[in-house]
Amino acid sequence: MTEELLKLFEQLEELFVNKKYNELKALLSDTEPADIAKFIEDNLEEIDQIRFFRLLPKDLASDVFIETDSDTQEALIKAFTDKELKAVIDDMFLDDAVDVIEEMPANVVKRILKNSDPQNRQQINELLEYPDDSAGSIMTTEFVSFSADMTVEQGFDKIRKTGINSETIYTCYVTDNRKHLIGVVTVKEMLLAGKTDVLRDIMDDSVITVETLDDKEQVAMMLSKYDFLALPVVDREGCLVGIVTVDDAVDVLQEEATEDIQKMAAILPNEKPYLKQSIWSIWKARVPWLLLLMVSATFTGLILNTYEASLSDISTVLIACVPMLMDTGGNAGGQASVTIIRSIALGDIEFKDLFKVLWKEIRVSILLAATLAVACFVKLTLIDNLLFGYKDYTPLLCLTVSLALFVTIIMAKIVGCLLPMFAKKIKLDPAVMASPFITTIVDALSLMLFCAISIAILG
Amino acid sequence: MTEELLKLFEQLEELFVNKKYNELKALLSDTEPADIAKFIEDNLEEIDQIRFFRLLPKDLASDVFIETDSDTQEALIKAFTDKELKAVIDDMFLDDAVDVIEEMPANVVKRILKNSDPQNRQQINELLEYPDDSAGSIMTTEFVSFSADMTVEQGFDKIRKTGINSETIYTCYVTDNRKHLIGVVTVKEMLLAGKTDVLRDIMDDSVITVETLDDKEQVAMMLSKYDFLALPVVDREGCLVGIVTVDDAVDVLQEEATEDIQKMAAILPNEKPYLKQSIWSIWKARVPWLLLLMVSATFTGLILNTYEASLSDISTVLIACVPMLMDTGGNAGGQASVTIIRSIALGDIEFKDLFKVLWKEIRVSILLAATLAVACFVKLTLIDNLLFGYKDYTPLLCLTVSLALFVTIIMAKIVGCLLPMFAKKIKLDPAVMASPFITTIVDALSLMLFCAISIAILG
Repeated sequence: MTEELLKLFEQLEELFVNKKYNELKALLSDTEPADIAKFIEDNLEEIDQIRFFRLLPKDLASDVFIETDSDTQEALIKAFTDKELKAVIDDMFLDDAVDVIEEMPANVVKRILKNSDPQNRQQINELLEYPDDSAGSIMTTEFVSFSADMTVEQGFDKIRKTGINSETIYTCYVTDNRKHLIGVVTVKEMLLAGKTDVLRDIMDDSVITVETLDDKEQVAMMLSKYDFLALPVVDREGCLVGIVTVDDAVDVLQEEATEDIQKMAAILPNEKPYLKQSIWSIWKARVPWLLLLMVSATFTGLILNTYEASLSDISTVLIACVPMLMDTGGNAGGQASVTIIRSIALGDIEFKDLFKVLWKEIRVSILLAATLAVACFVKLTLIDNLLFGYKDYTPLLCLTVSLALFVTIIMAKIVGCLLPMFAKKIKLDPAVMASPFITTIVDALSLMLFCAISIAILG
Repeated sequence: MTEELLKLFEQLEELFVNKKYNELKALLSDTEPADIAKFIEDNLEEIDQIRFFRLLPKDLASDVFIETDSDTQEALIKAFTDKELKAVIDDMFLDDAVDVIEEMPANVVKRILKNSDPQNRQQINELLEYPDDSAGSIMTTEFVSFSADMTVEQGFDKIRKTGINSETIYTCYVTDNRKHLIGVVTVKEMLLAGKTDVLRDIMDDSVITVETLDDKEQVAMMLSKYDFLALPVVDREGCLVGIVTVDDAVDVLQEEATEDIQKMAAILPNEKPYLKQSIWSIWKARVPWLLLLMVSATFTGLILNTYEASLSDISTVLIACVPMLMDTGGNAGGQASVTIIRSIALGDIEFKDLFKVLWKEIRVSILLAATLAVACFVKLTLIDNLLFGYKDYTPLLCLTVSLALFVTIIMAKIVGCLLPMFAKKIKLDPAVMASPFITTIVDALSLMLFCAISIAILG
């Protein structure tokens, strides 16, 4: 948190505690809703939150409300009178209202819907129907639409009339009389055109659209790729039903990156900020993969049980090399898998690139394996043998370990790049195929390789 | 890639190969610059790229150019005549020109600067001075500014005059006669106000600003937090020097997420898409951490060398449990560290939350450790002893391994949450403290714990 923000929070608290409400109100109307929301969440007891919220200027109240987290929202709603609730809900953009409702328990949802405008209620209910990961779930139905024969002047008049309730006015949509989307026109184009120009002549009629059931991550990536401020959402008949705005797209991209990072670290995704998660929900998100990966390590144990005696007969130092081999294999495989997972997420790689990827990883892995094998040989000879005096590290033994490392790295890279590609192909989430998962497989494979190579050369 | 895009590419290729240039031009003017850029990059030989580029309508050329990757840009620039180069560069927004220049070799940079407008050249040179990770490096100097005593009508006139060259016109800035930023006004507010209203009365005078040297990631996070379309950048005297727009902020957030993911997987960050990276640059990005982590595994080897004999004396199956212990420790530590790293990046956690985080991780780790320890005991008893017949897994030995696992998980979680927090404190990048790094530390610690506990109970 910046110093400025800390100072602001101190000021707010002081004014609130000392009941200097007029000064407080003046300060609040100059403060960003997101900052007020953070203040309410972090600095006030539940009983004070509603008191503080009631001091907010009317036009700020719902903006602040949607910026608070869902726990605070729930507490506030429970404290609201029906009239207050109605005012806040009706003042929200519909997609924000839907976001709020999605996090609430059933009885609160019921109360919200009961207290909202009948027309809004219907639209909220429609938006609630869309699947969680669809464009429909993040779109808003409040946009500006024109008919093609309107002039620029008429367009501006319509914006003045309906714009206050639209999430963005800067990109407007032109539809025919059956609501089919036929063009898009920006306020910039309208400002630079003449007042009497007809929209049909200045609109862009090759509109990029998405459908309501398209994946919201893809939609967000498109907004980012084309640098749009909004993207129109159409139904199967090509009728305009909503728009996705860039601020929501940014949130989606951030959430998806967080989700991928969590999956890569063997955690089930959880949207709540860390400090607001209960220890049980953290436990629930972490325990499944930890358990699964532990049980699958049974194979490594079995292999080690089988070969331990043979390895010990050759030299006890061989066993001491196992963790280094496994870790390096795991790291090498993790590098490849994470690179591929992120590239798939960014749309840089598709399944059809399989052979390109494989060929690249094979060449890279040979380079890396050679580098690491040489380094390993030097390290065992200089550090372990000469410096620490483990005379068992004979040149031949060092060579054997280095050879095993060489093969392990190549194998790890191949497994690491193939698994996410195939996961994508069979519509599994590639992010799950990251380090922890790869490590478990690579551990077992590298141990088998190591035992086989050691016994073949030294046994 | 969507089917639509594939079809479009086929069409473009067919028209180009058959030299149907008029149809091609018509199709191109209806196509998004980002899509044309991808077509040029992926589907054309270098010699065709410039031929194709010359067919682009004039107003599209520079938009397409900035969307191509830097290799294609370099090839195109080398093929441009001076006149073509000047047209493309002068038509770009300055921040885009700077992005292009930053990726070019020195002789190309010289040629670009020589062929750009003297006024642009000066501003480009100023922008090039800002450090790579600063707000200055992603801002543009092309924005609309007003003086406070202008009316709304005069404001719109100024937008009509200068707007075509501004990256955004929707957020405009009000400055005094010494260029100090004193307010901000949106086109929406101007449209909803009366034509003769004075900007001073409708502008918002509590403006959120950033400074030129602020971290660009922080700036992007602010844009996302406040849902702004642009954020003004001021110098130390409070004078407005540029703006950062939301499309650049989205790119920064995506790049930073990719960078963090790469660092978490022990890869040095690299901005280029995977398929465009040479195998040497991939090697260079991956080899340092692999080497370092391999060498640091020396400690694990030393510990195993020291205790191996004592462990084998007790039972050979103890050694077989080492990989499972290490992997689970590494996974548990990785979960904690990655959660904390991402929370720090998102601004959810700061160093002052250290004790809150530690207390949370301790409680979570006890829950997880208990769950895993019980599961481990059951697994060893049922699977390894009964199913696979390793009779060495006596109840006492299983209990010992489970106890070691219990302690390992708690230790791993504590190390995993503390290291990124301290890294942040001493201004190291927390993302480096992820799974591979944590694994190496946790491996050594868990092995020592395991040996000590085994010898104490069984030895």
